[in-house]
Amino acid sequence: MKIGIIGLGLIGGSLAIDLRQLGHTILGVSRNPKTCQQAIARNITHQASPELSLLSPAEVIFLCTPLAALQSTVEQLIPHLNPATILTDVGSVKAPVVEAIDPLWQNFVGGHPMAGTAESGLDAALSGLFIDRAYVLTPIATTPPAAVEIVAEIARSLQSKVYRCQPEDHDRAVAWISHLPVMVSASLIAACMSEADPIVLDLAQKFASSGFKDTSRVGGGNPELGVMMARYNQKEVVRSLHAYRHQLDQFIEQIEQENWIELERILSKTQRDRPLFLAP
Amino acid sequence: MKIGIIGLGLIGGSLAIDLRQLGHTILGVSRNPKTCQQAIARNITHQASPELSLLSPAEVIFLCTPLAALQSTVEQLIPHLNPATILTDVGSVKAPVVEAIDPLWQNFVGGHPMAGTAESGLDAALSGLFIDRAYVLTPIATTPPAAVEIVAEIARSLQSKVYRCQPEDHDRAVAWISHLPVMVSASLIAACMSEADPIVLDLAQKFASSGFKDTSRVGGGNPELGVMMARYNQKEVVRSLHAYRHQLDQFIEQIEQENWIELERILSKTQRDRPLFLAP
Repeated sequence: MKIGIIGLGLIGGSLAIDLRQLGHTILGVSRNPKTCQQAIARNITHQASPELSLLSPAEVIFLCTPLAALQSTVEQLIPHLNPATILTDVGSVKAPVVEAIDPLWQNFVGGHPMAGTAESGLDAALSGLFIDRAYVLTPIATTPPAAVEIVAEIARSLQSKVYRCQPEDHDRAVAWISHLPVMVSASLIAACMSEADPIVLDLAQKFASSGFKDTSRVGGGNPELGVMMARYNQKEVVRSLHAYRHQLDQFIEQIEQENWIELERILSKTQRDRPLFLAP
Repeated sequence: MKIGIIGLGLIGGSLAIDLRQLGHTILGVSRNPKTCQQAIARNITHQASPELSLLSPAEVIFLCTPLAALQSTVEQLIPHLNPATILTDVGSVKAPVVEAIDPLWQNFVGGHPMAGTAESGLDAALSGLFIDRAYVLTPIATTPPAAVEIVAEIARSLQSKVYRCQPEDHDRAVAWISHLPVMVSASLIAACMSEADPIVLDLAQKFASSGFKDTSRVGGGNPELGVMMARYNQKEVVRSLHAYRHQLDQFIEQIEQENWIELERILSKTQRDRPLFLAP
């Protein structure tokens, strides 16, 4: 199959590596000519160019640009396509993407491969990134089933676990388990730094170990990524934050009222519930 | 040196293993006769008994019982001691412990070896648990310097990093980096479980990966430990929770007002600040 990839960063580059390995012909597009040269020199893509016209012969095109560039990329891409070409994106928010792209192109399938590393860019691309990771597809009523099946088949060939759901359900679910944790974790770092006594702050920094390290990890990550989550999934992120604050207030109330039996009940429930999110 | 250890669990047992290895004579006390038999059979202690009188010849005694049992243990222990004996505890909260024990025994040094695993009990005891970990001592004005130096020397012999500070400063610092993270993390699990739509909850559980796993880890731990932190360090835990809620409200406000520049500024600061807590 001839597969096009627009945006040769971590996700686009990793898709290129695996799909080429599977025998597909890979056509890559990056705005940056140096990235194109690198993609060819390192045998990541068969061809690469800053020109979208390179993708005219592609049967499936993966849109791997930042969310902010998706719509304008599709608008510029359309003149070069034949109507059978399937477009799919890899954005981490789905409702606004599907809403924007579906009216522009019949054969569009919203997608979200839930894989990543702390790194970004083509240099960070690696093979096997999608193995055993969730790959979510969000077709709507107007999406042609044949197009969905072709993208699902490609995702399965990457050894991903393929899920299908409504774009809105996807966005609400990732708000809980991906976007909310970033804000919760960042608030922890900000709260510790608010300690006004320099002696106590210094001790806190010296005493911090694995508990603080794990809880603060995603809050100390890439700020642009955090802003992107909040910006493109604003409604669901705000909703999850309010639900979170409500739970936090329950903890504060039980501790203030010295209601240790109720606190133990709540903590026993969180201990029981956590494994539900860690199923293999 | 003859060293006594009361409470042969994870911390007491691990202290026994390392201190015996260093050439000391270890006298162990556990309420449970089976634990005493096991400590002798496995060569963890030289002698062991449920009777506190076993510790009469000890020069230094580590109090490794749960916090709730500390004061009554010391009261029962005193009749068996000569006045030169040094007592030190391993409790994770220091101000209430020092306040309770200091009036009972002159040669008492508050201590907190900041080490642990997810396990508990003598079976979980292991050698080298304290290497490179903080070991905090909290002497007050009435604590004999010679007693502090002897406990510090033992802690250094375990290859711990020894810190000295006021009991109140210790409790405030550990509230930030140890106790607050438990409540923050448990609230995340509780918030996700509050999702009323079973389809979305199911998707969230399927999609959760390393970000959720790390942020929720300490909130899914031993509920008794969480209650103990809140109970014995209540004032500082409540203080840190209020500061945390204030920071959380800042995040909510910026996201609700779509103030992406300010959100990026805050997230850039948390990214810069986190490494301050992870110094080697």
